[in-house]
Amino acid sequence: MVNNVINKEHVSKKFDADLEEIRTRVLQMGGFVEEQIKNAVEALTDGNEHMIEQIIDNDHRVNAMEIKIDELCSQVIVRRQPTAIDLRMIMTVINTITDLERIGDEATKIARMAKLIYAADRMHMPRFVEIRHIAAIAIDMLRKALDAFARLDPNASAEIVRQDEQVDEEFRSIIRHLITFMMEDPRKISTAIEILFAAKAVERIGDHAKNMSEYIVYLVKGKDVRHVSADEIEREVSK
Amino acid sequence: MVNNVINKEHVSKKFDADLEEIRTRVLQMGGFVEEQIKNAVEALTDGNEHMIEQIIDNDHRVNAMEIKIDELCSQVIVRRQPTAIDLRMIMTVINTITDLERIGDEATKIARMAKLIYAADRMHMPRFVEIRHIAAIAIDMLRKALDAFARLDPNASAEIVRQDEQVDEEFRSIIRHLITFMMEDPRKISTAIEILFAAKAVERIGDHAKNMSEYIVYLVKGKDVRHVSADEIEREVSK
Repeated sequence: MVNNVINKEHVSKKFDADLEEIRTRVLQMGGFVEEQIKNAVEALTDGNEHMIEQIIDNDHRVNAMEIKIDELCSQVIVRRQPTAIDLRMIMTVINTITDLERIGDEATKIARMAKLIYAADRMHMPRFVEIRHIAAIAIDMLRKALDAFARLDPNASAEIVRQDEQVDEEFRSIIRHLITFMMEDPRKISTAIEILFAAKAVERIGDHAKNMSEYIVYLVKGKDVRHVSADEIEREVSK
Repeated sequence: MVNNVINKEHVSKKFDADLEEIRTRVLQMGGFVEEQIKNAVEALTDGNEHMIEQIIDNDHRVNAMEIKIDELCSQVIVRRQPTAIDLRMIMTVINTITDLERIGDEATKIARMAKLIYAADRMHMPRFVEIRHIAAIAIDMLRKALDAFARLDPNASAEIVRQDEQVDEEFRSIIRHLITFMMEDPRKISTAIEILFAAKAVERIGDHAKNMSEYIVYLVKGKDVRHVSADEIEREVSK
């Protein structure tokens, strides 16, 4: 009996250590991906070629982080046979890193667009201010989502969902402005399309950060809020 | 001892039945999502309003399917404590349904673009033939990926990855043509942008189908090929 308790505690401590390692790695991956976006948006504004290449080159590191964490999650399930909340924690990680990896992809896409725009040696383009603005919101959403993950706090989710609506609205506004811009000067249509894709990538980053914050609500509240409104999420979280 | 064996067999049979139910549901979800894309591409060509509304309305069904399968997967892990290949099977399902749900989202986006294009009562637009063509490839990729899932066959993966390259190439070609089209008639820029987003949604469907086929390689071969070339996948699969 005593042996069993000790054994259980031992297993539980090992499990905690495993989970801790996984969570640390997720946060590291999140921090790295956040840097990738920041640098990509920076590169879009200043066309720093060295930085562009570095962002594109870094993408395999993001991918490797995802693969490693995925492996660790499978190992923990097999070794520790987690149930209930512990299993939900691992499911949350598995979902979260998929979104982080795709945020990484979007950062790379922004860098590629920056490369195209500057390779063509085109003049200073408008809309960069707007893209920086929408990107600042998306990065803020990502930071909040990572923070919510670190503290297992479901309270940020409703706000992140509202910020995502704001990002979508700003994105539509950028498109409208780009259309006007293209109509005024059809020679700039190619570049405008590249900017449009960069804006689209930022908008997708917002979607992924939103997904991430919703997983935390599921983890802590056991309630799947992936397809419900911000108000409903607020009600769920305050229960 | 005998009891143990029987018990084990019993557990294993229950487990098989659980897995079978999950796999059936994934294939149903896949079939439904495939219909959604087909209808969306159809609606883009003929502007059938009723169909457009139905596609948008159906999206919650796709979401509900994802949530249900996710729940079943968690239940199976808790109840049956699967290891090795069985656990990989469940991980494959969890990843697959995320992609299927996002393919569903893309179908909805295509329908929304069709709605915008026809709401503005705009004339017959070019590029629909090209979008139908690229969509046919993407749908074929999805069907192959679902088939690979049904038969646990990793052999389709390399071809699907190559088809994805073809989709990307066709997408770039559509963009080039749309740019020319916009330059020739700037009044049609708005509609061209909507078509561009529809094409982008199709391109994303290809990405998701590619992801799905790569999970099967991981499942059967235990090798993560998410970020490697078609040639490398072929080598892995033939090992």
